[in-house]
Amino acid sequence: MTVNREIHLASRPQGWPTADNFRLVTTDVPTPGPGQIVVRNRFISVDPYMRGRMNDVKSYVPPFQLDAPLDGGAVGEVVASEADGFKPGDTVLHGLGWREYALVDAKGARTVDPNLAPVSAYLSVLGMTGLTAYAGLLDVAAMKSGETVFVSGAAGAVGSMVGQIAKLRGAARVVGSAGSAAKVERLRALGFDAAFDYHDGPVRDALKAAAPDGIDVYFDNVGGEHLEAAIGAMNLHGRAAICGMIAQYNATEPPAAPRNLALLIGKRLTLRGFLVGDHGHLREQFVQEMAGWLRDGKLSYDETVVDGIENAPEAFLGMLRGENLGKMLVRV
Amino acid sequence: MTVNREIHLASRPQGWPTADNFRLVTTDVPTPGPGQIVVRNRFISVDPYMRGRMNDVKSYVPPFQLDAPLDGGAVGEVVASEADGFKPGDTVLHGLGWREYALVDAKGARTVDPNLAPVSAYLSVLGMTGLTAYAGLLDVAAMKSGETVFVSGAAGAVGSMVGQIAKLRGAARVVGSAGSAAKVERLRALGFDAAFDYHDGPVRDALKAAAPDGIDVYFDNVGGEHLEAAIGAMNLHGRAAICGMIAQYNATEPPAAPRNLALLIGKRLTLRGFLVGDHGHLREQFVQEMAGWLRDGKLSYDETVVDGIENAPEAFLGMLRGENLGKMLVRV
Repeated sequence: MTVNREIHLASRPQGWPTADNFRLVTTDVPTPGPGQIVVRNRFISVDPYMRGRMNDVKSYVPPFQLDAPLDGGAVGEVVASEADGFKPGDTVLHGLGWREYALVDAKGARTVDPNLAPVSAYLSVLGMTGLTAYAGLLDVAAMKSGETVFVSGAAGAVGSMVGQIAKLRGAARVVGSAGSAAKVERLRALGFDAAFDYHDGPVRDALKAAAPDGIDVYFDNVGGEHLEAAIGAMNLHGRAAICGMIAQYNATEPPAAPRNLALLIGKRLTLRGFLVGDHGHLREQFVQEMAGWLRDGKLSYDETVVDGIENAPEAFLGMLRGENLGKMLVRV
Repeated sequence: MTVNREIHLASRPQGWPTADNFRLVTTDVPTPGPGQIVVRNRFISVDPYMRGRMNDVKSYVPPFQLDAPLDGGAVGEVVASEADGFKPGDTVLHGLGWREYALVDAKGARTVDPNLAPVSAYLSVLGMTGLTAYAGLLDVAAMKSGETVFVSGAAGAVGSMVGQIAKLRGAARVVGSAGSAAKVERLRALGFDAAFDYHDGPVRDALKAAAPDGIDVYFDNVGGEHLEAAIGAMNLHGRAAICGMIAQYNATEPPAAPRNLALLIGKRLTLRGFLVGDHGHLREQFVQEMAGWLRDGKLSYDETVVDGIENAPEAFLGMLRGENLGKMLVRV
C-alpha cells in the first residue's frame, strides 16, 4: 500500500454523532524526520471519551480539530525510523490512531512485547483501559476486601475489568449492569455475582435485588439514573469512582440532577471523578498483577473487532450504542 | 420555677414546618436516679439538621418521636446530681435541649468552663458548630494554604467559622454567599474577600465575578444551585465538603441541580459528605487552635438569641428562613 487513509472530523455532532460527521481522506504515507518514526497501525482504539473531544469546548483534553485526523490510542509496527531506540519491525503503542500510517514523535511512542500478549491487549487489558479499571477501583474508590462493588457499563472494556479485578482482590459481592441479555449472561460467565439489564426496569429496583445489603463501592461509567441508584444503595462511607457518564455524552438537554445527593451527608459518601493519567504511578504494579492473572487464566477480556479504517466511524458509533462486548477495536 | 416546660413534636411537617407542628407541654421537674443529673438549661441550640429528624425516615440519627420532647445540643447548670463527677452549680453541655429542665445520664454530659468563654459559646464557636467548620474545611476538604475557598450559607453559624478559619489558615481568597445585604456586609466585616447575596442573580454569575480564577474548595451548606455553581467554578482537583443542603430540607419537589456532575471527571473533583461525629479525633487540636484565635481577637462569632422556651419553635423556623446571623440560640 502506497497511500495512507485516515478519518477526519468533517463536522461537530449535535447530540448523537452520525456517519456524516466523519470523512475518509487519502494522503501520502509520511516520511519520518529526525526523532520520528512511521508506524503502520494494526489496531485502533475507539473510546467513549472521544465523544467529548468532538465538541468545541474546553476540557481536560483539547477538542478534535475540524478537517484534521482524529487521534487516540493505537498499536502497530514501525516501518521507518529516524529515532534512536526504534527500528522497523518494532511493535509500538502510541496516540495517533484513526489512520493507517502514523508519523509519531519518538517520545510519544512506547515499544511493547508482541510475544507477551496479543498486540491488541496493549489497547485493552494491559493498556489504558485496564489501568483505568485498576486505578479507579483500587486507588480512587479504595476498594477493600470483603466489600460489595457495583459497576455500570459492566460488559464494556473498563467495566468487565473492574468486576473481575474486584473479585480477584477479594470483593464479597460484585454486581454489574449492562444493556442486553447477552451481556448480562457474559457478566455471569466472567464471575459477577449478579448482573442485570438496565432496560428491564428501574435501576434502583434491580440494584436493590442484586445487592440487598447495599453497596460499598460504585464504579460509574454511565451517570444519571445509575448514579442516583448507586447513591441510594450505598452503605455508610461508600465511595464512587466516577469514570464516565456515557448516558449523557450525546444528550442535548441537561441531565436531571441526581435527586438524592443529600444522602452524601448522612451516609458520609464520597464521589470522586478521575482520569487514568493521574494514576501512572500504579502502572508497574498494575502490569505485574494483571499479567499474572492473565497467565494464570484468572482474567478474561473481550474484544469486539471491526475491520478496516473506513469502518472506524461505524465502530465508534456502535460503541456509543453499546454494540460492543468488551473493548471495541478497529483492525487496520 | 417548680414546673418544667418542653417542646414536643405534635405532627410531622410536610414541606416547610409551621408552629402547628410543635406543642408546648408542662411537666414536673424531674428527679435524678442513680448516675443521672438534672440540668437547668440556659441555652438551647436549634440547627438545620433537626429538620431531617422531623421526617419519619431512616437516617443517621433516629427521627424525632411524635408527642415526645425534641432534643439537641444544650448547655445549662446542674441543679441535682446522683452522678459522680457532677455537682450542683456545674455548667454542662449535653444533648437534651428543647426543654427547661433535662434529666441527663451522666455519660451524656460534659462539664465546661464558664470562665473560659460565655457558656453559649459551647454551642457555637467552641462546640459542635465550630468543629463542623474546622473538620469540614481542613480534614474533609483538606484546604491548603494559598487556595480559594467558597462557602455557602456563609453568615450562618458554621459558614461564618469556615470563612474565618480559611483565612487564618492561609487561604488566598475566601468567598461567601448569604441571603441578605446585611449578611453580605457582615461577611465583609468578618474578613471575607468577596461576598454576594444569592437573591441578586444566578449563583453561577455571582461566583464567577467573586472568584474569577475559580475555586479550589467548596464548603456546602445549601446544595442545589449553589452546588452546581461551585462544581462549575472548581479548578482541577477541587474538593467539596458537603455539610448541609438547607435549600432542599423543606422541598417537596426533587432538586433541579446540579446538572453538571460530568465535570467531576475531567476536573478530577471530589464531593464528600460528612458528619462532625466522625471527626472527634480533631477536637483537642480544634479547641486549642480556636481558643487561641479567640483570645487573640482573630475570630468573631455571631449569635442570634431568642428568649423563652415557648419561642423555640419560632427560633427554629426563623433559622430555616435564614433570619439568624451566626448561631441561632434559645435562651431559657
